[in-house]
Amino acid sequence: MMLPLFFIFCLFSSSHAAVQDFCVGDLTAPQGPAGYSCKDPSKVTVNDFVFSGLGIPGNTSNPFKAAVTPAFAAQFPGVNGLGISFGRLDLAPGGVVPMHTHPGASEIFLVVHGTIFAGFVSSANTVYFKSLKMGDIMVFPQGLLHFQVNTGGTVALGFVSYSSSSPGLQILDYALFGNNLPTELVAATTFLDIAQIKKLKGVFGGTG
Amino acid sequence: MMLPLFFIFCLFSSSHAAVQDFCVGDLTAPQGPAGYSCKDPSKVTVNDFVFSGLGIPGNTSNPFKAAVTPAFAAQFPGVNGLGISFGRLDLAPGGVVPMHTHPGASEIFLVVHGTIFAGFVSSANTVYFKSLKMGDIMVFPQGLLHFQVNTGGTVALGFVSYSSSSPGLQILDYALFGNNLPTELVAATTFLDIAQIKKLKGVFGGTG
Amino acid sequence: MMLPLFFIFCLFSSSHAAVQDFCVGDLTAPQGPAGYSCKDPSKVTVNDFVFSGLGIPGNTSNPFKAAVTPAFAAQFPGVNGLGISFGRLDLAPGGVVPMHTHPGASEIFLVVHGTIFAGFVSSANTVYFKSLKMGDIMVFPQGLLHFQVNTGGTVALGFVSYSSSSPGLQILDYALFGNNLPTELVAATTFLDIAQIKKLKGVFGGTG
Amino acid sequence: MMLPLFFIFCLFSSSHAAVQDFCVGDLTAPQGPAGYSCKDPSKVTVNDFVFSGLGIPGNTSNPFKAAVTPAFAAQFPGVNGLGISFGRLDLAPGGVVPMHTHPGASEIFLVVHGTIFAGFVSSANTVYFKSLKMGDIMVFPQGLLHFQVNTGGTVALGFVSYSSSSPGLQILDYALFGNNLPTELVAATTFLDIAQIKKLKGVFGGTG
Amino acid sequence: MMLPLFFIFCLFSSSHAAVQDFCVGDLTAPQGPAGYSCKDPSKVTVNDFVFSGLGIPGNTSNPFKAAVTPAFAAQFPGVNGLGISFGRLDLAPGGVVPMHTHPGASEIFLVVHGTIFAGFVSSANTVYFKSLKMGDIMVFPQGLLHFQVNTGGTVALGFVSYSSSSPGLQILDYALFGNNLPTELVAATTFLDIAQIKKLKGVFGGTG
Amino acid sequence: MMLPLFFIFCLFSSSHAAVQDFCVGDLTAPQGPAGYSCKDPSKVTVNDFVFSGLGIPGNTSNPFKAAVTPAFAAQFPGVNGLGISFGRLDLAPGGVVPMHTHPGASEIFLVVHGTIFAGFVSSANTVYFKSLKMGDIMVFPQGLLHFQVNTGGTVALGFVSYSSSSPGLQILDYALFGNNLPTELVAATTFLDIAQIKKLKGVFGGTG
Repeated sequence: MMLPLFFIFCLFSSSHAAVQDFCVGDLTAPQGPAGYSCKDPSKVTVNDFVFSGLGIPGNTSNPFKAAVTPAFAAQFPGVNGLGISFGRLDLAPGGVVPMHTHPGASEIFLVVHGTIFAGFVSSANTVYFKSLKMGDIMVFPQGLLHFQVNTGGTVALGFVSYSSSSPGLQILDYALFGNNLPTELVAATTFLDIAQIKKLKGVFGGTG
Repeated sequence: MMLPLFFIFCLFSSSHAAVQDFCVGDLTAPQGPAGYSCKDPSKVTVNDFVFSGLGIPGNTSNPFKAAVTPAFAAQFPGVNGLGISFGRLDLAPGGVVPMHTHPGASEIFLVVHGTIFAGFVSSANTVYFKSLKMGDIMVFPQGLLHFQVNTGGTVALGFVSYSSSSPGLQILDYALFGNNLPTELVAATTFLDIAQIKKLKGVFGGTG
Repeated sequence: MMLPLFFIFCLFSSSHAAVQDFCVGDLTAPQGPAGYSCKDPSKVTVNDFVFSGLGIPGNTSNPFKAAVTPAFAAQFPGVNGLGISFGRLDLAPGGVVPMHTHPGASEIFLVVHGTIFAGFVSSANTVYFKSLKMGDIMVFPQGLLHFQVNTGGTVALGFVSYSSSSPGLQILDYALFGNNLPTELVAATTFLDIAQIKKLKGVFGGTG
Repeated sequence: MMLPLFFIFCLFSSSHAAVQDFCVGDLTAPQGPAGYSCKDPSKVTVNDFVFSGLGIPGNTSNPFKAAVTPAFAAQFPGVNGLGISFGRLDLAPGGVVPMHTHPGASEIFLVVHGTIFAGFVSSANTVYFKSLKMGDIMVFPQGLLHFQVNTGGTVALGFVSYSSSSPGLQILDYALFGNNLPTELVAATTFLDIAQIKKLKGVFGGTG
Repeated sequence: MMLPLFFIFCLFSSSHAAVQDFCVGDLTAPQGPAGYSCKDPSKVTVNDFVFSGLGIPGNTSNPFKAAVTPAFAAQFPGVNGLGISFGRLDLAPGGVVPMHTHPGASEIFLVVHGTIFAGFVSSANTVYFKSLKMGDIMVFPQGLLHFQVNTGGTVALGFVSYSSSSPGLQILDYALFGNNLPTELVAATTFLDIAQIKKLKGVFGGTG
Repeated sequence: MMLPLFFIFCLFSSSHAAVQDFCVGDLTAPQGPAGYSCKDPSKVTVNDFVFSGLGIPGNTSNPFKAAVTPAFAAQFPGVNGLGISFGRLDLAPGGVVPMHTHPGASEIFLVVHGTIFAGFVSSANTVYFKSLKMGDIMVFPQGLLHFQVNTGGTVALGFVSYSSSSPGLQILDYALFGNNLPTELVAATTFLDIAQIKKLKGVFGGTG
């Protein structure tokens, strides 16, 4: 004798709407403050919950000798609304992830290969930094400036996880030197020299 | 002399949009991680805030001798986004609500008639159980396995409330034996015997 | 052969601290914004998760012909931090729970016996009210004025659940007429007549 | 040599969807429990983040001698989902903001000009009030009844900020006397005299 | 005849513990992730909810020609746990609040006197800036770099409110040049020239 | 000329209490619902933010051929209150992490070496499973039953991150067969045969 679910749960059997374990993001539908609209649950498959993009080394043939591959809600819609996301970090020897913040999340950084020097600066203006080796993890509290540098002689590989499905990312150099913020205004609000700002605007593509 | 609201509140009077005390769920519109889209407030009536489905005894003429009637956001859209929902539990003598969890909510269980033996297991693997009589309430913390059994000689009636408008529900037997999870995989991940699994797949409708 | 938990979980076995499924309130220790400090988990028993005070009818021999018995974190420490609490409402014929709000929670109200007329007023100043009978539930969104009146000829019994373990309670009459808020100030901020205020201060124990 | 952002961030460069720093409300799209749907980020300008309506004195030529100008999400969509909003309060001499609550937010009240007597009542029925002068701020915890009165001889100006982008607003007089809540029901649930209720219904526009 | 509160509320009357409308911070007791421990409610007075420090102009006789006076939970314990805080900003002509972030809160900035040029940079590297005059408010979403500059000829006065009682504050210049972060590391992670870094370390007090 | 921080920030310089970027857990002080009390910030060092225990392979010489090494708040106090934690998973060939849930968090699982077959069951009783190889990540939504099996011929290594600093862990076999839950009660609430239960109680150490 069989016991179908609807024997005991009067109303559940007829409605998928009863379920909100997850909300796979529909990137084509409206967003709200809590994230993307949910994809129709009947069309969700296991592939919505698996992201394979992190198995491929990022291309570090760039001046930073670094590559960051995000698996945020925009790339990995399965995490939408779940308060978690992930990413991969490749650093060639001498590579660097420059000073940046994630406005919306704390981060745990894991070193899988190589030696990476990492740190952050607190609101109290204290610096916490350390050389990390394989298997070490370091936590960067939400919204604080932090960085990673490959100080070893080999390629380094790391992974990052975040406490939000959309942590955001603000890279200091691009925020200051990679947009149309006028040079005079950058100078006034950072105390950097005009020549320095113009030089870096040239590097990071800024105008004005 | 009359003081219409707009005398004092310059902008409020012209806009219903100012109000978001509640967000009655529109089950036909897109969902997001925080719940259903809101029904047009001008079409909301008191009936959106009242649910009468719990006044009717559930049908316990099934092998569990049990019936659960949910009033989650999917059945009772008035609770959408308010962090609360409700339900009714009918248990004939010997009836049982088998081991289950609510992935998204803590629960308070109230006994209104009869005697019900209830309990849960913590992450530390401690069991907390007790026989409950009329007027007793028991709290089951979020996500932990719990159960209810009618150990009295009479029909028992209970009500349940949750700390979410969509608490979810995972019944252990259906999760293991009521879907297409392969028998070998169930065996490998539960240490149950193959014969036991096949027997219960027969009962709960599982394949594979 | 036995598989103790510590075979697989290297660090868990030695530490109860790993568990924070629940945080039974220690009413004698400091509170924080999230609730009471947690009782030592090793001293927690099933009785911390069960509250029996709601099985006893409240005493309605008072001018309101009403009795409310709360099972908030302060009375039922097992719900501390779980975002849920409960209560019982007894209403003799003609009994009334006067206009009040819960500043910190939405509420679901269940009628178990009798007929109760209940309602709330929204921010948009719309009134939603209805006569509720056995098994009906009504939701009152967080922070809004609401009331319950026994309009039937018999004793009525209800239960209430909240979306917080400390929902708070502000009864309008006591807030206006049951403390030392000066009569002139009540008049200025409510537009009630002085005589009316003085009369009700006499009833509810206010001074000034 | 220039370092475009996409050198280092493989996937970011091609997608605005990666960003959810903010969610400027689209007042014409569906709302959800967390707020309005987000306006297309590519159409967002600085004007979405600036609100100039608070620079204009409100019209206090009304019986309250008061004017409240809100900058909630409905008026200032830039705050949608950010957990914050603002407003302006003008009080002519003798002006009053009558007893009211914000069901969804705590408030900080700042006095910029004049002298304002302000206060609130707690769940424990204690009254906290004080005369505030220029530069003083006072906090009103979420959901509690509070009021402001201009006790000085000059026009007073204040600003208010809230811990939600949609704090809601329930003015006691309008909730009791400005809608169709029947007079008998108001009497039963407030203990006010019928004559007093009828008088104030006349003032605040109530019927029934 | 008088109706003391305990007539209707059986358990409330005997216990102040029932109330958690607020949690005035006890700065001498342990903090937790949600804020300070609560001061004994029986010792709370209206002065815990009022902060007068913002009525006094800050001292702008410094190289920034600026002064920021915070009323966060650490200075104004009444806001502890309420998700809101406040502050005052004085800017002499030419004064500047340099690039900074609040890791834990969104901000609304109000201009009360003078003309202030303010802006922020988004994760998508777009700059939003505008000249603000008396009564204008601007919102800075959580964790993003922003700044304020007095571009008028007179002293400017502003107020700021935050969506957290402990918003935090990270000033870029101090984070980079005001601590012991080694010059080489600053250079590697910002692409600034060594000479520029050393010059600003001299200004902001950094070592290493 | 130097610009100490206190030139611009009147009150900040004198008080460490202004900072709550993080709350490193003090495992010896009281816990609350939001986590451990905070360690004195002046005693916090970089070592509080780095955890090196995950660099060491867990011991898989046990019947599960598996080892899980957690870095939750109880082992890695630096994550306390930050909504994130981490762990390491070692699986010898044929190793298995049996069916389990995390009551308080969603999980992202990363495969670093080998091939792991992983899956979860939703509230709607749908099974989502897939074979994962190096660099693949899979997300398990909060509170749902999930499992991992090493189906490759080599040792497999994975890492896990969680959306809470205290995700909790409930292993099905230990919850059912590793405590004093009476055999009859297990049978009644799971429909397993008595013989099967007794056999597994022998394996997992249960009594009763």
